Amino acid sequence: MSISASASGSDVVEIIPLGGASEIGKNMIVIRHADDIVVIDAGVTFPSADHPGIDLIVPDMTYLSDNADNVRAVVLTHGHEDHIGAVPFLLRRVQAPIYGTPLTLGLVRERLQEHHLLEVADLRIVQPGERITFGHITVEPIRVTHSIPDTISLAITTPAGLIVHTGDFKIDHTPVDGRSFDAARFAQLGDDGVVLLITDSVNAEKPGWVPSERIVGRFLDQQFDHADGRILVTTFASNIHRIQQFFEVAADHGRKVAIAGRSMQRNVRIARELDYLRYDDSLSISVDDLENWPDDRVAILTTGSQGEPFAALSQMATDRHKIRIKEGDTVILSSTPIPGNEIGIWRTVNRLINRGARVVYDLITPVHASGHANQEELKLMYSLTRPLYVVPFHGEPRMMQAYTDMVMGMGAPRDSVIWLQNGDRLGLDGVGAEKLEPLEITGSVFVDGTSADGISDLVLRDRRHLAEGGTVVVTLTRDFDSGEILSGPEFVARGFLSSEDTEDLFLEAASRVRDALDDLSATDDVDAEDAGTVVRDTVARLLRKRTRLRPVVLPIVTEI
Amino acid sequence: MSISASASGSDVVEIIPLGGASEIGKNMIVIRHADDIVVIDAGVTFPSADHPGIDLIVPDMTYLSDNADNVRAVVLTHGHEDHIGAVPFLLRRVQAPIYGTPLTLGLVRERLQEHHLLEVADLRIVQPGERITFGHITVEPIRVTHSIPDTISLAITTPAGLIVHTGDFKIDHTPVDGRSFDAARFAQLGDDGVVLLITDSVNAEKPGWVPSERIVGRFLDQQFDHADGRILVTTFASNIHRIQQFFEVAADHGRKVAIAGRSMQRNVRIARELDYLRYDDSLSISVDDLENWPDDRVAILTTGSQGEPFAALSQMATDRHKIRIKEGDTVILSSTPIPGNEIGIWRTVNRLINRGARVVYDLITPVHASGHANQEELKLMYSLTRPLYVVPFHGEPRMMQAYTDMVMGMGAPRDSVIWLQNGDRLGLDGVGAEKLEPLEITGSVFVDGTSADGISDLVLRDRRHLAEGGTVVVTLTRDFDSGEILSGPEFVARGFLSSEDTEDLFLEAASRVRDALDDLSATDDVDAEDAGTVVRDTVARLLRKRTRLRPVVLPIVTEI
Repeated sequence: MSISASASGSDVVEIIPLGGASEIGKNMIVIRHADDIVVIDAGVTFPSADHPGIDLIVPDMTYLSDNADNVRAVVLTHGHEDHIGAVPFLLRRVQAPIYGTPLTLGLVRERLQEHHLLEVADLRIVQPGERITFGHITVEPIRVTHSIPDTISLAITTPAGLIVHTGDFKIDHTPVDGRSFDAARFAQLGDDGVVLLITDSVNAEKPGWVPSERIVGRFLDQQFDHADGRILVTTFASNIHRIQQFFEVAADHGRKVAIAGRSMQRNVRIARELDYLRYDDSLSISVDDLENWPDDRVAILTTGSQGEPFAALSQMATDRHKIRIKEGDTVILSSTPIPGNEIGIWRTVNRLINRGARVVYDLITPVHASGHANQEELKLMYSLTRPLYVVPFHGEPRMMQAYTDMVMGMGAPRDSVIWLQNGDRLGLDGVGAEKLEPLEITGSVFVDGTSADGISDLVLRDRRHLAEGGTVVVTLTRDFDSGEILSGPEFVARGFLSSEDTEDLFLEAASRVRDALDDLSATDDVDAEDAGTVVRDTVARLLRKRTRLRPVVLPIVTEI
Repeated sequence: MSISASASGSDVVEIIPLGGASEIGKNMIVIRHADDIVVIDAGVTFPSADHPGIDLIVPDMTYLSDNADNVRAVVLTHGHEDHIGAVPFLLRRVQAPIYGTPLTLGLVRERLQEHHLLEVADLRIVQPGERITFGHITVEPIRVTHSIPDTISLAITTPAGLIVHTGDFKIDHTPVDGRSFDAARFAQLGDDGVVLLITDSVNAEKPGWVPSERIVGRFLDQQFDHADGRILVTTFASNIHRIQQFFEVAADHGRKVAIAGRSMQRNVRIARELDYLRYDDSLSISVDDLENWPDDRVAILTTGSQGEPFAALSQMATDRHKIRIKEGDTVILSSTPIPGNEIGIWRTVNRLINRGARVVYDLITPVHASGHANQEELKLMYSLTRPLYVVPFHGEPRMMQAYTDMVMGMGAPRDSVIWLQNGDRLGLDGVGAEKLEPLEITGSVFVDGTSADGISDLVLRDRRHLAEGGTVVVTLTRDFDSGEILSGPEFVARGFLSSEDTEDLFLEAASRVRDALDDLSATDDVDAEDAGTVVRDTVARLLRKRTRLRPVVLPIVTEI
């Protein structure tokens, strides 16, 4: 690697991931040349169990706020939440046109409406083959296949050379919409000479090829052949091709279709308005209409493929939905668990089975196909583009390890594979690639409720601590002058132990506290804060000794 | 099914699962005839993320406490925690001899010592082929293969006929210790006529056969061939055969072995004392000795295969262990994720990779073999025993569904497959099988700290609630007579929002509280409790409105 000391040299181009580096989710990459910044994708991650109460995780966009005037454009590769979900948060910081294909922008429009940001947004449709230029940076979308229609990769021409950013892709030669992966264009770019390939690596651990999405239609068809009761199918609400095939299979089997779940209804509406989804009006009925049709004449498309507690399918599994699961129902999970969701998904599956449904899921019957390239597809992308350097992106370190082993097996030198963290700055100068001084960012912002600035790690730590041992509040009132205890200490506990187990415990703790405070007052005078510290330490120590538990002890000393 | 109304008839035998029915883990089955009760296994489950702060989940043993005098024996099938972990909790309720094979009892002895119960325990070794009789119930252990040595199935002769309880098993014809699965004995029992088969169903979703444990040795050998730095291997501390093979492979490659992690050191010691594990003393070195040997001459056996935060490997992955992970290390996870542990495991793997280690795990290279029978093995067990009725046990409903499909494919009538929940009572009278009035039990007891009686669901709900939104404590002191506010309201929050975000919010809340209480006092007199309710409702409503968050609001009204 050889970049002149003047990393700020006029031809130096910086690649700065703000999300999606060494992780799956919340994709966001900054491409910077001089004063021109292009942002690629603005995604969110959905929190797992170790982020209690968090609604969303968005990239730390401080860098973009600090350079707001230089952001020329935001280019979106496709309409998945982990690529567009942070657009509203980005628009609150940066005013820049947003480019994307029609379906992608259709989904973004919806998001912006929810955030009352649609009027301030400048959405611009771009199609594969077109070229959009910002200063010395030119971006060309390339048609690829993925688990949502209208997905693109990006060829980015810069003063430091040609960069290919694959975004999410699989190589599907028989896509449901007939719009195939544009292998030829990647080969041409390889001929022109690609300096850097930024590539999907989510499935880098998986050998072989991902089957075509079209094959899922056949599997669904088989399931419909064998079911004589109602059929419920759940999948990602954004998987329009899956949904298209579901409608076709339902029509072939003379079943009417009802849709349960808001996000599913919304996406079906948008995709249909934009002509990405086609079915005859006569096919669809409302959930309320279901009772007017025999069970073997209906099929239900529902949300909840990830066991989300408030999704329609999870509500049905706990009898909290107007659709009641019954003997004879067939429920098909046409999806795969997102890591971390396993517990919730299997809990839902088990509840459905306990209610008499027959549940079909990918583990026992293939009813899903991944949207991400497996090893043979990743190898093909690499050999088509023949890059000087490659960044395995949108994968955890274990996938980066697998990707690195894979391309080294193809002859790539170890130091041509560059691992980036969020906030890293990769400098390209046309000759070499070099890591520059990284940004100082947290990488993740935890959004909870309306606090768009996010929840601090400290608050999250407290929540985990509260979850572990609950909380014990100790209140007492002291005389301001004498320090004498006027009332208390009294104890209020939540999530600690059952009250019958705490009675004696708190009596003992109370006397300990009184003794401790007496000893204290005996010495020179102490304010409420000192007293509070003594109370907390005294109580926490006793509780730990007696119960081995570590509740959050909150001392509240009032002085009057 | 035909059981005479007199379900208490002298020949009726009851099968009552207290754990392990419709779930994986905490196995415990009661076999009862008249006044004779035999308990099979006493296991625990380890909690997942949705049981914050819980150490263990044990079966609800109320039934055994209520019938303590009738319990003739506890028979253990093998030494895994989900089959023996609850023995100490059982012994606190019931005095009965505990039967098991030598290794199983060796591990139980250790548990009992930790609980200071060893002196009250009556441990009796039993071997395959022996028969132990309790009233009209006779139990015969049968040698099977599993991921821990010395595992047995049980043939249980009762007045209602012959019951076969497989416990956990796989069919390994080339086990590491040469003690093979006793297929012939199961066939003989089938000839005698088996009324009920209670069978492992954990892997009922998985086609084919589980590979022999021996094959893992070969994979380990290959990994050792290619590593030129230190090698760290983690596996379940109870997988003595895996550990035996590890020692052999290490010896073959001229590497000394150090053991990190208390449970691993303990199990290796026990297994070696009992001659289930054999290696030369010269092979082992201490963790402190490691630095005195070249990296390519050492191998480390460590705990942490499930990403447990306090296990040795997880500590190494966060630089909190004296063994520091470095470039060139090879870490082999010879294990598979227990559902729910994925997040923690992958986090550990990623951290190890980020520290320069090469990490090998089952997803990319086969370095593990399951201990539970796959479909072809389950089918063989079924066709060897040819039972009248079968209970798919130790599996979730989804595995029960898969097992049922499987045996129905073999010609079993649907109603010969019986699904049980914990607390169900299955009656056998030699003619038929019938579900009797179930017990009223909770199924699970959540053990936290020293409270052996367990944590109530209410406490758990509170903990989840606290984790979601944190807590806001509101304190104020009122005059007992006038109800006038003497001090406060004051707000203390934990896990809610960062303090800078709450300042104005709590000011507003305070004035709302004062207004609300004034309105109240204006009406007739109210006690501290009424006031507290008003405070909670007022604050909770405002916080939800302003932040969309739902913290646990704890009002504490002191009157003086």
